[in-house]
Amino acid sequence: MELPSRLIDRAVDQIAGLPGVGRRTALRLALHLLARNEEDVRRFTEAIQDMKEGVKACTVCGNLGEEDVCGICRDARREEGRIAVVEDLRDLLAIEATGHFRGRYHVLGGVISPMDGVGPADLRVESLVTRASSKDCQEIIFALPTTMEGDTTAFYLDKRLRECGVEVTTLARGVAVGDELQYADELTLIRSLQQRLPYSASTGDVSPAP
Amino acid sequence: MELPSRLIDRAVDQIAGLPGVGRRTALRLALHLLARNEEDVRRFTEAIQDMKEGVKACTVCGNLGEEDVCGICRDARREEGRIAVVEDLRDLLAIEATGHFRGRYHVLGGVISPMDGVGPADLRVESLVTRASSKDCQEIIFALPTTMEGDTTAFYLDKRLRECGVEVTTLARGVAVGDELQYADELTLIRSLQQRLPYSASTGDVSPAP
Repeated sequence: MELPSRLIDRAVDQIAGLPGVGRRTALRLALHLLARNEEDVRRFTEAIQDMKEGVKACTVCGNLGEEDVCGICRDARREEGRIAVVEDLRDLLAIEATGHFRGRYHVLGGVISPMDGVGPADLRVESLVTRASSKDCQEIIFALPTTMEGDTTAFYLDKRLRECGVEVTTLARGVAVGDELQYADELTLIRSLQQRLPYSASTGDVSPAP
Repeated sequence: MELPSRLIDRAVDQIAGLPGVGRRTALRLALHLLARNEEDVRRFTEAIQDMKEGVKACTVCGNLGEEDVCGICRDARREEGRIAVVEDLRDLLAIEATGHFRGRYHVLGGVISPMDGVGPADLRVESLVTRASSKDCQEIIFALPTTMEGDTTAFYLDKRLRECGVEVTTLARGVAVGDELQYADELTLIRSLQQRLPYSASTGDVSPAP
């Protein structure tokens, strides 16, 4: 598709570089931006530029924010010795939204994926090992995606963390609350069976803290 | 979902203002931009800003470009008296891609949609009437979407153009090439029947020019 202007072409190329956006969608978005007034478009690009310039990763856990150390790491009421390892900010936000985790986080910044050229050196692994080696650290909780990449990452991290002598746990896998058994996939059902637990322990608060 | 930074929040708000992009997708795109380097993000926002500043609508037909009058309107080899009326640039590009139309265009900039608050005054209607009133103009071809809004727009334009004494045509509606009859919807099949034509006229060049 030949566009009538090199400027539109360049913008469409840039927008199509976003994940999950093809050239057709990119053109639709570019035309939408062209139809807005200048002030609106400036606000759009400035918000993105300001975010890029102002947001940094927490030097302790990798969570994003505007300070060197994030609010969660600075919050003295949160358990320092219990660390949930997540892939990125969205998973951290999902756990925070439950309101049932009072520990801290470690944001890896991705998962190991040889297909995408992501190895352990591209992730915040060394700082996790350092944190886990502290004598205050009691538990590392893997809150990683249930994909091959997530499993590979968990496997690798478990090996690395063994030397730290810290307890390593992982989120339970099983039939989701509200799901019918007959529609659960086989692997999930198998995990649910393998990880069955005393009924009396199956309700109550989900917080791991005593 | 409470984001850890006001800057991320603002960027997500802006991205979620694009059509078809929800807050969840917007957050994914924002995190993707945050993971890129500064140079990359600057290239992204600059491409959009440059497009907004450099691209303007053709003063004759409303097509987008970097000049006051677009390349199609300046092209003397194209028939000046045959004008295809389209909703926006994407429809113009789709027709251009066929390589079978040698007339000119008129880009309305939308279609009449009371639901979205778009009336005739928001579209390039007056300039179309002016062009159609020129004694060189022979045919106005409606190449509008087959939606209620497209039909409403065609109905309105037809009434307005009657005073110009110009021939008004519309794209044929019918079973798409390659489609099986049994899967065509009823309305399309009815239109196909109503607009049937002598078999001998059904092949050959699709260009309306003699």
